[in-house]
Amino acid sequence: MIGRLPRYYRYLGDLKSEGVERISSQELSRIMNVTASQIRQDLNNFGGFGQQGYGYNTSYLYDEIGKILGLNKQHDMILIGAGKLGQAIVNYMNLKNRGFSFKGAFDIDPALVGKSIANVPVFKMEQMSDFITKNNIDIAVLTVPKAAAIEITQVLSETPIKAIWNFAHVDLKVPERIQVESVHLQDSLMKLSYNIRRNDEN
Amino acid sequence: MIGRLPRYYRYLGDLKSEGVERISSQELSRIMNVTASQIRQDLNNFGGFGQQGYGYNTSYLYDEIGKILGLNKQHDMILIGAGKLGQAIVNYMNLKNRGFSFKGAFDIDPALVGKSIANVPVFKMEQMSDFITKNNIDIAVLTVPKAAAIEITQVLSETPIKAIWNFAHVDLKVPERIQVESVHLQDSLMKLSYNIRRNDEN
Repeated sequence: MIGRLPRYYRYLGDLKSEGVERISSQELSRIMNVTASQIRQDLNNFGGFGQQGYGYNTSYLYDEIGKILGLNKQHDMILIGAGKLGQAIVNYMNLKNRGFSFKGAFDIDPALVGKSIANVPVFKMEQMSDFITKNNIDIAVLTVPKAAAIEITQVLSETPIKAIWNFAHVDLKVPERIQVESVHLQDSLMKLSYNIRRNDEN
Repeated sequence: MIGRLPRYYRYLGDLKSEGVERISSQELSRIMNVTASQIRQDLNNFGGFGQQGYGYNTSYLYDEIGKILGLNKQHDMILIGAGKLGQAIVNYMNLKNRGFSFKGAFDIDPALVGKSIANVPVFKMEQMSDFITKNNIDIAVLTVPKAAAIEITQVLSETPIKAIWNFAHVDLKVPERIQVESVHLQDSLMKLSYNIRRNDEN
Protein backbone atom coordinates (compact mmCIF):
# COMPACT_ATOMS: atom_id res chain seq x y z
CA MET A 1 0.00 0.00 0.00
CA ILE A 2 2.70 2.51 0.94
CA GLY A 3 4.28 1.52 -2.36
CA ARG A 4 1.25 2.93 -4.20
CA LEU A 5 0.89 6.19 -2.23
CA PRO A 6 3.59 8.18 -4.06
CA ARG A 7 1.85 7.30 -7.33
CA TYR A 8 -1.52 8.55 -6.02
CA TYR A 9 0.25 11.67 -4.86
CA ARG A 10 1.79 12.22 -8.29
CA TYR A 11 -1.51 11.81 -10.17
CA LEU A 12 -3.42 13.98 -7.72
CA GLY A 13 -0.73 16.67 -8.03
CA ASP A 14 -1.16 16.60 -11.82
CA LEU A 15 -4.95 16.83 -11.54
CA LYS A 16 -4.64 19.68 -9.07
CA SER A 17 -2.35 21.65 -11.36
CA GLU A 18 -4.78 21.03 -14.24
CA GLY A 19 -7.48 22.64 -12.08
CA VAL A 20 -9.51 19.44 -11.51
CA GLU A 21 -11.31 20.00 -8.19
CA ARG A 22 -13.08 16.68 -7.75
CA ILE A 23 -12.44 13.19 -9.13
CA SER A 24 -14.42 9.95 -8.90
CA SER A 25 -12.76 6.64 -8.13
CA GLN A 26 -13.89 5.50 -11.64
CA GLU A 27 -12.09 8.36 -13.33
CA LEU A 28 -8.98 7.96 -11.18
CA SER A 29 -9.14 4.24 -11.98
CA ARG A 30 -9.12 5.00 -15.71
CA ILE A 31 -6.17 7.36 -15.70
CA MET A 32 -4.10 5.36 -13.21
CA ASN A 33 -4.90 1.97 -14.70
CA VAL A 34 -5.86 0.51 -11.30
CA THR A 35 -9.30 -0.96 -10.48
CA ALA A 36 -11.79 1.48 -8.91
CA SER A 37 -12.32 -0.94 -6.04
CA GLN A 38 -8.56 -0.99 -5.37
CA ILE A 39 -8.59 2.79 -5.26
CA ARG A 40 -11.55 2.92 -2.86
CA GLN A 41 -9.91 0.29 -0.67
CA ASP A 42 -6.58 2.14 -0.61
CA LEU A 43 -8.02 5.56 0.06
CA ASN A 44 -10.57 4.41 2.64
CA ASN A 45 -7.65 3.09 4.67
CA PHE A 46 -6.66 6.68 5.10
CA GLY A 47 -9.82 7.94 6.68
CA GLY A 48 -12.45 7.77 3.93
CA PHE A 49 -11.84 11.06 2.17
CA GLY A 50 -14.39 10.30 -0.53
CA GLN A 51 -18.14 10.68 -0.59
CA GLN A 52 -20.36 8.21 -2.45
CA GLY A 53 -21.47 9.57 -5.82
CA TYR A 54 -19.60 12.81 -5.30
CA GLY A 55 -15.98 11.84 -5.72
CA TYR A 56 -12.83 12.93 -3.95
CA ASN A 57 -11.75 16.51 -3.36
CA THR A 58 -8.47 16.50 -5.31
CA SER A 59 -6.70 19.16 -3.32
CA TYR A 60 -7.73 17.79 0.09
CA LEU A 61 -6.76 14.23 -0.84
CA TYR A 62 -3.43 15.48 -2.22
CA ASP A 63 -2.64 17.29 1.04
CA GLU A 64 -3.71 14.37 3.23
CA ILE A 65 -1.58 11.89 1.31
CA GLY A 66 1.26 14.40 1.50
CA LYS A 67 0.96 14.39 5.30
CA ILE A 68 0.94 10.59 5.40
CA LEU A 69 4.08 10.63 3.29
CA GLY A 70 5.66 13.08 5.74
CA LEU A 71 5.91 15.76 3.06
CA ASN A 72 4.45 18.48 5.27
CA LYS A 73 7.73 18.47 7.22
CA GLN A 74 11.03 20.01 6.20
CA HIS A 75 13.73 17.41 5.57
CA ASP A 76 17.30 18.63 5.61
CA MET A 77 19.67 16.53 3.55
CA ILE A 78 23.32 16.11 2.72
CA LEU A 79 24.89 14.67 -0.38
CA ILE A 80 27.74 12.22 0.15
CA GLY A 81 29.76 11.92 -3.03
CA ALA A 82 29.65 15.08 -5.14
CA GLY A 83 30.48 13.38 -8.44
CA LYS A 84 28.35 13.40 -11.56
CA LEU A 85 25.47 11.33 -10.21
CA GLY A 86 25.31 13.32 -6.98
CA GLN A 87 25.44 16.61 -8.86
CA ALA A 88 22.68 15.41 -11.18
CA ILE A 89 20.49 14.53 -8.20
CA VAL A 90 20.99 17.91 -6.55
CA ASN A 91 20.28 19.72 -9.80
CA TYR A 92 17.57 17.56 -11.23
CA MET A 93 15.21 16.82 -8.45
CA ASN A 94 14.02 20.28 -7.65
CA LEU A 95 13.66 18.94 -4.17
CA LYS A 96 13.00 22.12 -2.25
CA ASN A 97 9.45 22.25 -3.58
CA ARG A 98 8.57 19.21 -1.55
CA GLY A 99 10.32 20.14 1.65
CA PHE A 100 13.62 18.47 0.85
CA SER A 101 16.62 20.73 1.02
CA PHE A 102 20.31 20.00 0.55
CA LYS A 103 22.40 21.77 3.22
CA GLY A 104 25.81 20.47 2.24
CA ALA A 105 27.76 18.00 0.14
CA PHE A 106 30.81 15.95 1.09
CA ASP A 107 33.57 14.53 -1.05
CA ILE A 108 37.13 13.22 -0.80
CA ASP A 109 38.17 15.00 -4.02
CA PRO A 110 40.15 18.17 -3.09
CA ALA A 111 39.17 19.66 -6.46
CA LEU A 112 35.50 19.68 -5.38
CA VAL A 113 35.90 20.75 -1.74
CA GLY A 114 35.25 24.47 -1.32
CA LYS A 115 33.14 24.66 -4.47
CA SER A 116 29.34 24.63 -4.73
CA ILE A 117 26.80 22.52 -6.62
CA ALA A 118 23.62 24.46 -7.31
CA ASN A 119 24.43 26.66 -4.29
CA VAL A 120 25.15 23.66 -2.06
CA PRO A 121 28.66 23.95 -0.56
CA VAL A 122 31.02 20.97 -0.81
CA PHE A 123 32.95 20.09 2.37
CA LYS A 124 35.65 17.59 3.28
CA MET A 125 34.41 14.09 4.09
CA GLU A 126 35.88 14.34 7.64
CA GLN A 127 33.48 17.18 8.44
CA MET A 128 30.40 15.05 7.74
CA SER A 129 29.56 13.65 11.19
CA ASP A 130 29.83 17.02 12.94
CA PHE A 131 27.78 18.67 10.23
CA ILE A 132 24.96 16.14 10.60
CA THR A 133 24.77 16.69 14.35
CA LYS A 134 25.06 20.50 14.27
CA ASN A 135 22.54 20.97 11.46
CA ASN A 136 19.99 18.32 12.41
CA ILE A 137 20.34 16.57 9.08
CA ASP A 138 17.64 13.92 8.46
CA ILE A 139 18.69 12.29 5.21
CA ALA A 140 22.05 11.35 3.71
CA VAL A 141 22.03 10.81 -0.04
CA LEU A 142 24.76 8.31 -0.82
CA THR A 143 26.26 8.47 -4.30
CA VAL A 144 29.67 6.91 -3.82
CA PRO A 145 31.14 3.60 -5.05
CA LYS A 146 30.24 0.41 -3.25
CA ALA A 147 33.29 0.03 -1.00
CA ALA A 148 33.09 3.66 0.14
CA ALA A 149 29.34 3.26 0.73
CA ILE A 150 29.90 0.44 3.21
CA GLU A 151 32.57 2.43 5.08
CA ILE A 152 30.57 5.66 5.16
CA THR A 153 27.47 3.81 6.34
CA GLN A 154 29.42 2.67 9.39
CA VAL A 155 30.30 6.30 10.14
CA LEU A 156 26.69 7.42 9.53
CA SER A 157 25.44 4.76 11.95
CA GLU A 158 27.21 6.65 14.77
CA THR A 159 25.43 9.92 13.92
CA PRO A 160 21.80 10.96 14.57
CA ILE A 161 20.95 10.63 10.84
CA LYS A 162 17.42 9.29 10.30
CA ALA A 163 17.66 7.91 6.79
CA ILE A 164 19.94 6.99 3.91
CA TRP A 165 18.89 7.32 0.29
CA ASN A 166 21.31 4.85 -1.24
CA PHE A 167 22.46 4.87 -4.86
CA ALA A 168 25.44 2.56 -4.33
CA HIS A 169 25.17 -0.91 -5.79
CA VAL A 170 25.11 -2.65 -2.42
CA ASP A 171 22.62 -3.49 0.35
CA LEU A 172 23.52 -1.44 3.42
CA LYS A 173 23.52 -2.76 6.98
CA VAL A 174 22.31 -0.13 9.45
CA PRO A 175 20.85 0.09 12.98
CA GLU A 176 17.06 -0.33 13.03
CA ARG A 177 16.44 3.35 13.76
CA ILE A 178 17.93 4.33 10.36
CA GLN A 179 15.66 3.99 7.32
CA VAL A 180 17.21 2.97 4.02
CA GLU A 181 15.72 3.31 0.57
CA SER A 182 17.91 2.09 -2.26
CA VAL A 183 17.81 3.03 -5.92
CA HIS A 184 19.61 0.15 -7.59
CA LEU A 185 19.96 1.40 -11.15
CA GLN A 186 21.68 -1.72 -12.41
CA ASP A 187 18.98 -3.99 -10.96
CA SER A 188 16.39 -1.91 -12.78
CA LEU A 189 18.27 -2.20 -16.07
CA MET A 190 18.53 -5.97 -15.60
CA LYS A 191 14.76 -6.23 -15.23
CA LEU A 192 14.44 -4.40 -18.52
CA SER A 193 16.91 -6.75 -20.16
CA TYR A 194 15.00 -9.77 -18.77
CA ASN A 195 11.74 -8.47 -20.23
CA ILE A 196 13.36 -7.83 -23.62
CA ARG A 197 14.65 -11.41 -23.71
CA ARG A 198 11.24 -12.83 -22.76
CA ASN A 199 9.50 -10.71 -25.39
CA ASP A 200 12.06 -11.68 -28.06
CA GLU A 201 11.37 -15.35 -27.39
CA ASN A 202 7.59 -15.07 -27.70
CA MET B 1 10.76 -13.74 -8.48
CA ILE B 2 12.26 -11.81 -11.41
CA GLY B 3 12.45 -8.95 -8.93
CA ARG B 4 14.91 -10.96 -6.85
CA LEU B 5 17.13 -12.22 -9.69
CA PRO B 6 19.22 -9.05 -10.12
CA ARG B 7 20.01 -9.21 -6.41
CA TYR B 8 21.14 -12.85 -6.66
CA TYR B 9 23.22 -11.84 -9.64
CA ARG B 10 24.82 -9.00 -7.69
CA TYR B 11 25.72 -11.18 -4.68
CA LEU B 12 27.02 -14.01 -6.84
CA GLY B 13 29.14 -11.52 -8.78
CA ASP B 14 30.66 -10.32 -5.52
CA LEU B 15 31.34 -13.87 -4.35
CA LYS B 16 32.88 -14.72 -7.70
CA SER B 17 35.21 -11.73 -7.57
CA GLU B 18 36.19 -12.70 -4.00
CA GLY B 19 37.23 -16.09 -5.37
CA VAL B 20 34.43 -18.08 -3.67
CA GLU B 21 33.90 -21.14 -5.89
CA ARG B 22 31.01 -22.84 -4.13
CA ILE B 23 28.30 -21.58 -1.79
CA SER B 24 25.58 -23.35 0.19
CA SER B 25 22.01 -22.07 0.35
CA GLN B 26 22.58 -21.58 4.11
CA GLU B 27 25.55 -19.30 3.55
CA LEU B 28 23.83 -17.39 0.75
CA SER B 29 20.83 -17.07 3.05
CA ARG B 30 22.99 -15.50 5.74
CA ILE B 31 24.67 -12.89 3.56
CA MET B 32 21.53 -12.02 1.58
CA ASN B 33 19.19 -12.02 4.57
CA VAL B 34 16.66 -14.29 2.81
CA THR B 35 15.59 -17.71 4.13
CA ALA B 36 17.53 -20.69 2.81
CA SER B 37 14.28 -22.32 1.72
CA GLN B 38 13.38 -19.21 -0.30
CA ILE B 39 16.76 -19.41 -1.98
CA ARG B 40 16.38 -23.10 -2.80
CA GLN B 41 12.88 -22.48 -4.12
CA ASP B 42 14.00 -19.55 -6.30
CA LEU B 43 17.04 -21.24 -7.71
CA ASN B 44 15.36 -24.61 -8.29
CA ASN B 45 12.89 -22.78 -10.55
CA PHE B 46 15.81 -22.18 -12.82
CA GLY B 47 16.81 -25.75 -13.38
CA GLY B 48 18.21 -26.96 -10.06
CA PHE B 49 21.78 -25.77 -10.26
CA GLY B 50 22.57 -26.90 -6.74
CA GLN B 51 23.55 -30.28 -5.36
CA GLN B 52 22.41 -31.45 -1.94
CA GLY B 53 25.16 -31.05 0.63
CA TYR B 54 27.59 -29.66 -1.91
CA GLY B 55 26.28 -26.17 -2.59
CA TYR B 56 26.06 -24.10 -5.72
CA ASN B 57 28.87 -23.48 -8.16
CA THR B 58 29.14 -19.68 -7.86
CA SER B 59 30.47 -19.01 -11.31
CA TYR B 60 28.04 -21.35 -13.08
CA LEU B 61 25.04 -19.97 -11.21
CA TYR B 62 26.18 -16.40 -11.94
CA ASP B 63 26.41 -17.13 -15.65
CA GLU B 64 23.07 -18.96 -15.79
CA ILE B 65 21.25 -16.13 -14.01
CA GLY B 66 23.01 -13.71 -16.36
CA LYS B 67 21.53 -15.59 -19.31
CA ILE B 68 18.05 -15.57 -17.79
CA LEU B 69 18.45 -11.81 -17.35
CA GLY B 70 19.43 -11.49 -21.01
CA LEU B 71 22.88 -10.22 -20.04
CA ASN B 72 24.69 -12.56 -22.45
CA LYS B 73 23.39 -10.43 -25.32
CA GLN B 74 24.64 -7.04 -26.47
CA HIS B 75 22.12 -4.24 -25.93
CA ASP B 76 22.64 -1.08 -27.91
CA MET B 77 21.19 2.02 -26.27
CA ILE B 78 20.56 5.68 -26.88
CA LEU B 79 20.25 8.48 -24.37
CA ILE B 80 17.36 10.89 -24.89
CA GLY B 81 18.04 14.08 -22.98
CA ALA B 82 21.75 14.79 -22.57
CA GLY B 83 21.40 16.99 -19.48
CA LYS B 84 23.00 16.39 -16.10
CA LEU B 85 21.04 13.27 -15.19
CA GLY B 86 21.58 11.72 -18.61
CA GLN B 87 25.28 12.54 -18.51
CA ALA B 88 25.54 11.05 -15.03
CA ILE B 89 23.91 7.82 -16.20
CA VAL B 90 26.23 7.48 -19.19
CA ASN B 91 29.29 8.18 -17.04
CA TYR B 92 28.34 6.36 -13.87
CA MET B 93 26.90 3.08 -14.83
CA ASN B 94 29.91 1.52 -16.50
CA LEU B 95 27.39 -0.23 -18.65
CA LYS B 96 29.60 -1.76 -21.29
CA ASN B 97 30.80 -4.38 -18.84
CA ARG B 98 27.38 -5.91 -18.84
CA GLY B 99 26.69 -5.74 -22.55
CA PHE B 100 24.96 -2.37 -22.50
CA SER B 101 26.47 0.21 -24.80
CA PHE B 102 25.42 3.79 -25.59
CA LYS B 103 25.62 4.46 -29.34
CA GLY B 104 24.29 8.01 -29.36
CA ALA B 105 22.58 10.75 -27.35
CA PHE B 106 19.86 13.16 -28.47
CA ASP B 107 19.00 16.61 -27.23
CA ILE B 108 17.16 19.76 -28.30
CA ASP B 109 19.87 22.02 -26.84
CA PRO B 110 22.06 23.32 -29.75
CA ALA B 111 24.90 23.84 -27.25
CA LEU B 112 25.07 20.05 -26.67
CA VAL B 113 24.53 18.83 -30.24
CA GLY B 114 27.83 17.95 -31.92
CA LYS B 115 29.59 17.39 -28.59
CA SER B 116 30.26 14.06 -26.86
CA ILE B 117 29.51 12.63 -23.41
CA ALA B 118 32.04 9.98 -22.40
CA ASN B 119 32.71 9.38 -26.13
CA VAL B 120 29.00 9.16 -26.95
CA PRO B 121 28.10 11.68 -29.70
CA VAL B 122 25.13 14.01 -29.15
CA PHE B 123 22.76 14.41 -32.13
CA LYS B 124 19.70 16.53 -32.88
CA MET B 125 16.42 15.18 -31.55
CA GLU B 126 15.00 14.98 -35.11
CA GLN B 127 17.64 12.39 -36.02
CA MET B 128 16.48 9.97 -33.32
CA SER B 129 13.98 7.79 -35.21
CA ASP B 130 16.27 7.17 -38.15
CA PHE B 131 19.18 6.45 -35.85
CA ILE B 132 17.19 3.80 -33.95
CA THR B 133 16.23 2.01 -37.16
CA LYS B 134 19.65 2.20 -38.83
CA ASN B 135 21.60 1.12 -35.75
CA ASN B 136 19.24 -1.54 -34.37
CA ILE B 137 18.93 0.25 -31.05
CA ASP B 138 17.20 -1.85 -28.36
CA ILE B 139 16.86 0.54 -25.43
CA ALA B 140 16.07 4.25 -25.14
CA VAL B 141 17.07 5.85 -21.85
CA LEU B 142 14.69 8.71 -21.25
CA THR B 143 16.00 11.56 -19.08
CA VAL B 144 13.84 14.50 -20.16
CA PRO B 145 11.12 16.44 -18.33
CA LYS B 146 7.65 14.94 -18.06
CA ALA B 147 5.93 16.76 -20.95
CA ALA B 148 8.79 15.99 -23.33
CA ALA B 149 8.79 12.36 -22.17
CA ILE B 150 5.16 11.89 -23.20
CA GLU B 151 5.78 13.43 -26.63
CA ILE B 152 9.00 11.50 -27.27
CA THR B 153 7.36 8.25 -26.22
CA GLN B 154 4.80 8.73 -28.98
CA VAL B 155 7.64 9.11 -31.48
CA LEU B 156 9.47 6.07 -30.02
CA SER B 157 6.29 4.00 -30.37
CA GLU B 158 6.60 4.33 -34.17
CA THR B 159 10.17 2.99 -34.17
CA PRO B 160 11.43 -0.60 -33.70
CA ILE B 161 12.77 0.23 -30.21
CA LYS B 162 12.33 -2.69 -27.78
CA ALA B 163 12.43 -0.94 -24.44
CA ILE B 164 12.40 2.38 -22.61
CA TRP B 165 14.29 2.97 -19.39
CA ASN B 166 12.29 5.88 -18.05
CA PHE B 167 13.57 8.47 -15.57
CA ALA B 168 10.79 11.00 -16.20
CA HIS B 169 8.28 11.48 -13.42
CA VAL B 170 5.36 10.04 -15.40
CA ASP B 171 3.91 6.63 -16.29
CA LEU B 172 4.41 6.08 -20.02
CA LYS B 173 1.80 4.59 -22.35
CA VAL B 174 3.39 2.38 -25.01
CA PRO B 175 2.40 -0.45 -27.39
CA GLU B 176 2.60 -3.88 -25.75
CA ARG B 177 5.75 -4.88 -27.68
CA ILE B 178 7.74 -2.11 -25.92
CA GLN B 179 9.01 -2.86 -22.41
CA VAL B 180 9.15 -0.01 -19.90
CA GLU B 181 11.07 0.11 -16.66
CA SER B 182 10.74 3.33 -14.68
CA VAL B 183 13.04 4.78 -12.07
CA HIS B 184 10.81 7.20 -10.21
CA LEU B 185 13.31 8.99 -7.97
CA GLN B 186 10.71 11.17 -6.30
CA ASP B 187 8.51 8.18 -5.45
CA SER B 188 11.53 6.56 -3.83
CA LEU B 189 12.27 9.67 -1.78
CA MET B 190 8.64 9.81 -0.64
CA LYS B 191 8.85 6.24 0.65
CA LEU B 192 11.86 7.30 2.67
CA SER B 193 10.01 10.31 4.03
CA TYR B 194 7.03 8.08 4.94
CA ASN B 195 9.30 5.71 6.86
CA ILE B 196 10.98 8.60 8.70
CA ARG B 197 7.55 9.92 9.79
CA ARG B 198 6.45 6.47 10.98
CA ASN B 199 9.67 5.96 12.90
CA ASP B 200 9.45 9.44 14.48
CA GLU B 201 5.97 8.61 15.78
CA ASN B 202 6.93 5.31 17.39
